[in-house]
Amino acid sequence: MRIGELSRRTGVPVATIKYYLREGLLPPGESTGRNQAVYDDGHARRLRLARALITVGGLSVVAAREVLEALAVPDRSTYGALAVAHKSVTRHDPDPAVPEEARQRAAERVRRLIADRGWELPHDHPAARTLTDTLATMEHLGNGSFAARLDRFAAASEQIAAADVDCVDEIRDSPEEMAETMIVGTVLGDTALSALRRLAQQDAARRRFAPASRPGPAAGPDLPQKPEGPDRTAVARPEAVRPDVDPTDNG
Amino acid sequence: MRIGELSRRTGVPVATIKYYLREGLLPPGESTGRNQAVYDDGHARRLRLARALITVGGLSVVAAREVLEALAVPDRSTYGALAVAHKSVTRHDPDPAVPEEARQRAAERVRRLIADRGWELPHDHPAARTLTDTLATMEHLGNGSFAARLDRFAAASEQIAAADVDCVDEIRDSPEEMAETMIVGTVLGDTALSALRRLAQQDAARRRFAPASRPGPAAGPDLPQKPEGPDRTAVARPEAVRPDVDPTDNG
Repeated sequence: MRIGELSRRTGVPVATIKYYLREGLLPPGESTGRNQAVYDDGHARRLRLARALITVGGLSVVAAREVLEALAVPDRSTYGALAVAHKSVTRHDPDPAVPEEARQRAAERVRRLIADRGWELPHDHPAARTLTDTLATMEHLGNGSFAARLDRFAAASEQIAAADVDCVDEIRDSPEEMAETMIVGTVLGDTALSALRRLAQQDAARRRFAPASRPGPAAGPDLPQKPEGPDRTAVARPEAVRPDVDPTDNG
Repeated sequence: MRIGELSRRTGVPVATIKYYLREGLLPPGESTGRNQAVYDDGHARRLRLARALITVGGLSVVAAREVLEALAVPDRSTYGALAVAHKSVTRHDPDPAVPEEARQRAAERVRRLIADRGWELPHDHPAARTLTDTLATMEHLGNGSFAARLDRFAAASEQIAAADVDCVDEIRDSPEEMAETMIVGTVLGDTALSALRRLAQQDAARRRFAPASRPGPAAGPDLPQKPEGPDRTAVARPEAVRPDVDPTDNG
């Protein structure tokens, strides 16, 4: 198909497609003459994915290109898929204003967390550096309350990761699909999870701070009140435990 | 202090400070002559925060400006703080290529989730729209596995939100600090949480997929094998249920 048809098919404007082609997000079409090229379904699929990673997933063009390039490499093992997804981790230059001592303390905190949770990770995982830099910056801004609850955040993250692994486990036999699922679930999943976090925050804040809707008494199942009296379990009545006798049968 | 001193104090280059001033991220200093201005500690604090939201938190300059403007408004209630933090929710134009039916299905899924979890939210919370658009895009990309586990992701998000609310609850008496803590914890917290998710994913994938470390037999408590034979529950032996008699006592 020509570029106009590719645009209609995917809903991505022609100008954006040309930009993605220039930036290497999309491989060139097959040339059919001066300034003419044709594109196939693979282009359409990759274009949709590129567009989603950038607009919905919030990746930069550079980060999206890296992820898409890694997807094109034929290492389709589970770990390959994971490595591709992890290329999308938010990267940044560490803030030079953060004092080195704060960074050292944060690095030690992250090492302790990883050890406490029994996580076996490759040395120098990029996400460990991101976490370290983020905690150091938080401390620099005078905010220690997130770091103080790091274990609770890590425990919740383990539950998320278990669900993430289930997402790819069910398609173990299709490594290509697995890699793409991992990427979409990780990058777009970050957006979905930050939205879920805000919805849950809103409700948690209402429960905690709104005076009008304080929770009432605990709403557990109402257990029938036991009659007060001597403990009837001390002496078993044989008929009460003989299944062949119906205790309500008076006949 | 002059701009050079502000730069030294915060570690932010002069060119970046000038850019932030032009973009309204930082209020102008007090003018002391042509092209001369002085800045105070409030500028330094706000500059550090702006820098962190953009570099570590990954906010756009526009989003960071909105958050910082909202911080300057003197509505310092808990809900004010929350609203400020929620301005940082990843926003995007919904992908026009996503069919309207997919959007409708995603919207219904989000409504059901909110009802199932008993979340009481303001009508049209921006994060609900973000979640809807993200789920619709995932479906459009052929990925239904995240949506299929939405309840598990929501349950983990509730735990995160409970810890988030604890972070601000301990400083309830200082509304200014509360608002800033909420912002730092939410925006930089998103970065930290996506890093935690990737670390936990790496370990979860190792446990699930690495052949060398397959889990052995279930490590639950070893229950003693019951001897095969006639079902001994049919006829109760009174002594077996008398707690004051030890059945192993042969004396």
